Amino acid sequence: MNFPPQTPLAEGLPSSVPFVGPETQERAKGKAFQARLGANESVFGPSPLAIEAMARAARDAWMYADPENFDLKEALAAHHGVAPDNIVVGEGIDGLLGYLCRLYVAPGVKVVTSDGAYPTFNFHVAGYGGDLVKVPYSGDFEDPDALLAAGDGARLIYIANPDNPMGSVHPAAVMERMMDRVPGGTLLVLDEAYSDFAPETAALDVLRPNVIRFRTFSKAYGMAGARVGYAIAHAHLARAFDKIRNHFGMSRVSVAGAMAALDDQSYLAEVLAQVAASRTRIGEIARNNGLVPLASATNFVTLDCGRDGDHARAVLAALVERGVFVRMPFVAPQDRCIRISAGKPADMDVLATVLPEALAAVT
Amino acid sequence: MNFPPQTPLAEGLPSSVPFVGPETQERAKGKAFQARLGANESVFGPSPLAIEAMARAARDAWMYADPENFDLKEALAAHHGVAPDNIVVGEGIDGLLGYLCRLYVAPGVKVVTSDGAYPTFNFHVAGYGGDLVKVPYSGDFEDPDALLAAGDGARLIYIANPDNPMGSVHPAAVMERMMDRVPGGTLLVLDEAYSDFAPETAALDVLRPNVIRFRTFSKAYGMAGARVGYAIAHAHLARAFDKIRNHFGMSRVSVAGAMAALDDQSYLAEVLAQVAASRTRIGEIARNNGLVPLASATNFVTLDCGRDGDHARAVLAALVERGVFVRMPFVAPQDRCIRISAGKPADMDVLATVLPEALAAVT
Repeated sequence: MNFPPQTPLAEGLPSSVPFVGPETQERAKGKAFQARLGANESVFGPSPLAIEAMARAARDAWMYADPENFDLKEALAAHHGVAPDNIVVGEGIDGLLGYLCRLYVAPGVKVVTSDGAYPTFNFHVAGYGGDLVKVPYSGDFEDPDALLAAGDGARLIYIANPDNPMGSVHPAAVMERMMDRVPGGTLLVLDEAYSDFAPETAALDVLRPNVIRFRTFSKAYGMAGARVGYAIAHAHLARAFDKIRNHFGMSRVSVAGAMAALDDQSYLAEVLAQVAASRTRIGEIARNNGLVPLASATNFVTLDCGRDGDHARAVLAALVERGVFVRMPFVAPQDRCIRISAGKPADMDVLATVLPEALAAVT
Repeated sequence: MNFPPQTPLAEGLPSSVPFVGPETQERAKGKAFQARLGANESVFGPSPLAIEAMARAARDAWMYADPENFDLKEALAAHHGVAPDNIVVGEGIDGLLGYLCRLYVAPGVKVVTSDGAYPTFNFHVAGYGGDLVKVPYSGDFEDPDALLAAGDGARLIYIANPDNPMGSVHPAAVMERMMDRVPGGTLLVLDEAYSDFAPETAALDVLRPNVIRFRTFSKAYGMAGARVGYAIAHAHLARAFDKIRNHFGMSRVSVAGAMAALDDQSYLAEVLAQVAASRTRIGEIARNNGLVPLASATNFVTLDCGRDGDHARAVLAALVERGVFVRMPFVAPQDRCIRISAGKPADMDVLATVLPEALAAVT
């Protein structure tokens, strides 16, 4: 059949997806997972106030959300001590990274990231035809020096702090030194999806012309399925998104939930405590089974399975087969690990039961 | 300050937005609208079952939605008698039109639409650097012949049926004749946002390699704020979206609502009846005030104010000033009209009171 041609760029893109969803695996197995610990979602859920706000907003879903996201930007600005013009609200960090790449990336544009860092960022860079340069991790940390060394002539340098999938974190001082050294003409893309879980020493408070920071309601606020993310940047950068974003793209229900979630910082504190307890428990379970938990500044713990990628992939497959949804780093040598999201005590009990079975099955 | 440069395309884009939201106007006036009849939202709201489903799903908002949108695609496919592979689910038609332009439009690519048709489509075409060619309406109808005549060498031809902002509709036979004549290499973009309101004679049931149809839960299903749209197309076209879409972009709460809304066709029928009654009432109010209602196959009625664009803009401003949110066509000679969305009897009472005051104020 004769189909109208797509752009050469689009025609050349692969049909690959950044991640396979747990539902796809459940359909393939014909069985639901016992524990959903693979996507760093917050099993602790949204604040009860956010749930209530979303339930209440459901009957107002006939109205488009405010395309300016005025109230949410005001609330976020107050929360972060910046101006509303420094905030961009979007459909999760994924959506915002897509807009970012649309603004800055075109065929031939160089972009630098770490090999094994967030695949969805890479998906967007490739989708806009950028030349992606990857540098290795250094000891399970993203490596600011290596990123900068490769950054000559790059338009974007991506770094997540804390890092996913390793859970490691750099203190604020390291990030600020990195920012000082970003080459002219380069934008530092700082993914702070997990920063709510990080220690105080990692807390950043910067507005620089060459830095954009991404935050989300998907992790600590427990609203991954609501799709509310935001960026903090100099107004010149932040307002550029208005040239291309889907102005009526936000769910009104989700925005109502995000407002209520932000307002309930005491629930956030409870979640952080539960996450910390779960990280400890994951570490205990891991050690009881001869695995080594890496230090984590996030809502997941990355476990060193002690051998190579093939072994870790076998462990992962054995866990998945037994009803525990988990994921793992894609790239060596980090792929010697599997990654377990924090869960409720019941999820941890499942993990404690299933992990030794999975390990026994692969050795 | 030295900001990292955006792509030349992005640098050149204006900061214009397709639409100013009613909330922006409310903030400027310091007062809420009495009647919200400007964005063709459904004041009748979502199905009670959809509201219930969304309220119930709120506590599950911690989970990302299924990135394949498997269940919703199955349900939509069954509803339309096509295969799931013929369906693309996205963040409203706006979001999907953005993806469409990303797939097909690049600098120098010709795109044809009607002058005064959907501004958000134009926003996306410009955003990807396309050359937009506009043809005039013919007697308040989009003009298939003129679109085709201008379509030589075009990659996309856009037409909405029924049309927004005029409310006019072409029978299916006219659209099918148009499809027969679409040039090779051109994709017909058929925006069916309002087709649920259209008469049976306009009902289309086509899957052609050179046609993509867009549908939404924003209008008849009353879920504009939920952001659930979809496209129906040949699988080759439909699956191309997977190369670039935000796979985890859908709100889990919204998808749950859409499933329930689709399942409640009897509520849809009730809404259609209420919309029809409101169209009649808008027509009566208009005629009582010396305005001429145009025939409508949508959930709004476009009223001919009988003079030029300046007059209609003054009438619109006078309505807005008096607390009635309405919009109007942007382009002459259609800008002699204002456009009123269907409303509840109470909204219609407000309109009946305010319209004569507004008209008196401008003459």
